[in-house]
Amino acid sequence: MLSVDEAHHIIIENAQKANCQTENIGLQNAVGQVLQEDIFADRDLPPFNRVAMDGIAFNTKAFLKNGNTFKIEKIIAAGDPAYTLQNLNACVEIMTGAVLPQGADAVVRYEDVTIENSIATVIVNSVNALQNIHTKGKDVRAESLLINKGVALSAAEIAVAASVGKANITVSKLPKVAIISTGNELVNVGEIVLPHQIRKSNSFMIDAQLQQWNINATAYHLNDDLTEITVQLKNILINYDVVILTGGVSKGKFDFLPQAFDELGVQKHFHKIAQRPGKPFWFGSNNDAVVFAFPGNPVSSFVCLLRYFKPWLQTYLRQNIENHFYYALAETVQFKPNLTYFIPVKLTNDNKTVKVAKPFFGNGSGDFVNLKNVDGFLELPVGKDVYEKGELYKFINFRNI
Amino acid sequence: MLSVDEAHHIIIENAQKANCQTENIGLQNAVGQVLQEDIFADRDLPPFNRVAMDGIAFNTKAFLKNGNTFKIEKIIAAGDPAYTLQNLNACVEIMTGAVLPQGADAVVRYEDVTIENSIATVIVNSVNALQNIHTKGKDVRAESLLINKGVALSAAEIAVAASVGKANITVSKLPKVAIISTGNELVNVGEIVLPHQIRKSNSFMIDAQLQQWNINATAYHLNDDLTEITVQLKNILINYDVVILTGGVSKGKFDFLPQAFDELGVQKHFHKIAQRPGKPFWFGSNNDAVVFAFPGNPVSSFVCLLRYFKPWLQTYLRQNIENHFYYALAETVQFKPNLTYFIPVKLTNDNKTVKVAKPFFGNGSGDFVNLKNVDGFLELPVGKDVYEKGELYKFINFRNI
Repeated sequence: MLSVDEAHHIIIENAQKANCQTENIGLQNAVGQVLQEDIFADRDLPPFNRVAMDGIAFNTKAFLKNGNTFKIEKIIAAGDPAYTLQNLNACVEIMTGAVLPQGADAVVRYEDVTIENSIATVIVNSVNALQNIHTKGKDVRAESLLINKGVALSAAEIAVAASVGKANITVSKLPKVAIISTGNELVNVGEIVLPHQIRKSNSFMIDAQLQQWNINATAYHLNDDLTEITVQLKNILINYDVVILTGGVSKGKFDFLPQAFDELGVQKHFHKIAQRPGKPFWFGSNNDAVVFAFPGNPVSSFVCLLRYFKPWLQTYLRQNIENHFYYALAETVQFKPNLTYFIPVKLTNDNKTVKVAKPFFGNGSGDFVNLKNVDGFLELPVGKDVYEKGELYKFINFRNI
Repeated sequence: MLSVDEAHHIIIENAQKANCQTENIGLQNAVGQVLQEDIFADRDLPPFNRVAMDGIAFNTKAFLKNGNTFKIEKIIAAGDPAYTLQNLNACVEIMTGAVLPQGADAVVRYEDVTIENSIATVIVNSVNALQNIHTKGKDVRAESLLINKGVALSAAEIAVAASVGKANITVSKLPKVAIISTGNELVNVGEIVLPHQIRKSNSFMIDAQLQQWNINATAYHLNDDLTEITVQLKNILINYDVVILTGGVSKGKFDFLPQAFDELGVQKHFHKIAQRPGKPFWFGSNNDAVVFAFPGNPVSSFVCLLRYFKPWLQTYLRQNIENHFYYALAETVQFKPNLTYFIPVKLTNDNKTVKVAKPFFGNGSGDFVNLKNVDGFLELPVGKDVYEKGELYKFINFRNI
């Protein structure tokens, strides 16, 4: 059986080969999207010697030569055009954000000045050249690279893009995703449920998680009938970039998906990973679409979505992927089977220690109610039986915290 | 001047007093929203003795009495109505998700069975009662509380709500928010910018961050003119629950906002907090709206949005707020002023240590380009000059990681 790392590698390779389009969208719609152009400064930042305090501006040579009083020759607001000091021994009142006048080289804030009859008196003893001035180009020089292609845009990058005039911006186009639930035991959420039936919940879970990644997917349901599955899947494969299925990939007599994929020419890249939960995960693709067929147990399909689909998506979108984060186990865990073990964990600062990952095991891969206790999963790799308290393991989150 | 904690306290009290409405929305739109009803199990979970492996089901007493061969009397799929074993010495083939037949008490997976001529032979030596059966009510008993009111719904809670039939769900109604930029120096992002002007970026930053919290705000701009500000603000205050402004609250001659608020009967709750950046933050309210007037420096307004508006919003929405998270400083920081100090930090597992917060100082509150290096801010409290490497401080994030 494939290891987690081998499966990951196959999935990343698939995403690298896939062709992701780009699109130019309004900056106000770009938060969370993956940038597909380099953003450069169109001018210095700040673009001029920018006053950083409300107060008065003058020439420090005059302060040294003539002492602490200055005639006020003008009041300058942010947004006023650049001004030149007419008298190098005079000052201007000036506001935060304004252009420092030609001839002035320092700003003293109002708190350190008294003003009477248009004469300003500085009441501190020393004034340094360039004080309270955010000098032209201090943060960034014109034409320097501000944001690299491949960044997932946060509010901070949106502000930077706005500041250099990017009203529109090029980002990766999100894939079209279909979510397919399978299984005759499933009924819709709003319908009457008979004792032997259960309501659809996996497709809701996947849809909700995809929304967190900015994807609005379309949901389908297929009954356990090979003909129905094959006919409908054929159509869906043509119309979507990604097809995510849950259920129908185990050893059961009515698990028709692998057979249907085969008939439709969807090439199997792997079936089954040496992990718990989520072992029966089936992955494949044809020229139209890539197929993630997750097991039907809710925790299994959730772990597979987070552990495999998310990196596929980030790679597909050409997102620069940060290293994973590692947290220390809050308690020792024993696990004998020769499988990678994903355990539900809550991140916590219990007892004012550094943040650690505390396991909440619940009742296995069917018990999704237990997930309300946790923030994500810790990945305990194959190859040992005892995972000691304090050891660092990779963390996979599903809650924004 | 007010401390950070005092300001926080005033903001939380304001939010607690505000009246937040609830609304009933489709479950497919509920991810990220704050739940305003308790969600109960409508029946046991699992709702029946649920088969957890594909294989055969039989009675373990027959296995002990008659040995390892069983006549197969039926094939049962998930979604088939409950069945009763006709012959207690026979078995059924049965699939994951199906109802365990009355009379059977164990499932042996296909891998441990051979089948020939409708006779199944178990090829393992021992079979335990209840093996591979997820028993009725094991995860949850009917009528037990599954999700508490006040939770911000992740994909996991959406799945739980679906499983108990909540096609619609009651959540807190998000506030209507106006974002107002002020300052004559600002021009729109798509327009020509003159040397003494800068483009609007704060309002884009705030709007983008609000989108991350599910809020679609409306943006306005006001010039530095007391009459214009007063007339327009009056109208905006009536039509929105929250008004967020940037700029116009410092000591400048054209910082008309405090005066305009006064004329419009917006009560000032505080002006200025002993912190860097973001000191000139002005906070107030009238009967219609609450007003967050942030300083114009980009990093200042961002810190204030994250540190004050976010907890206001969570409290307003009646969200159960988790404790804050604390990370260790990756290097010692010295800071003399008697202020709380918010420093930009990147969370990192450098050198395979536990996750720590690494400072990226940049050039102060005007330098928002520096934020591309970081994930959030670390809050270094007032009252000391040296913050040692390894000490834990509160972390405020803006990037989903």
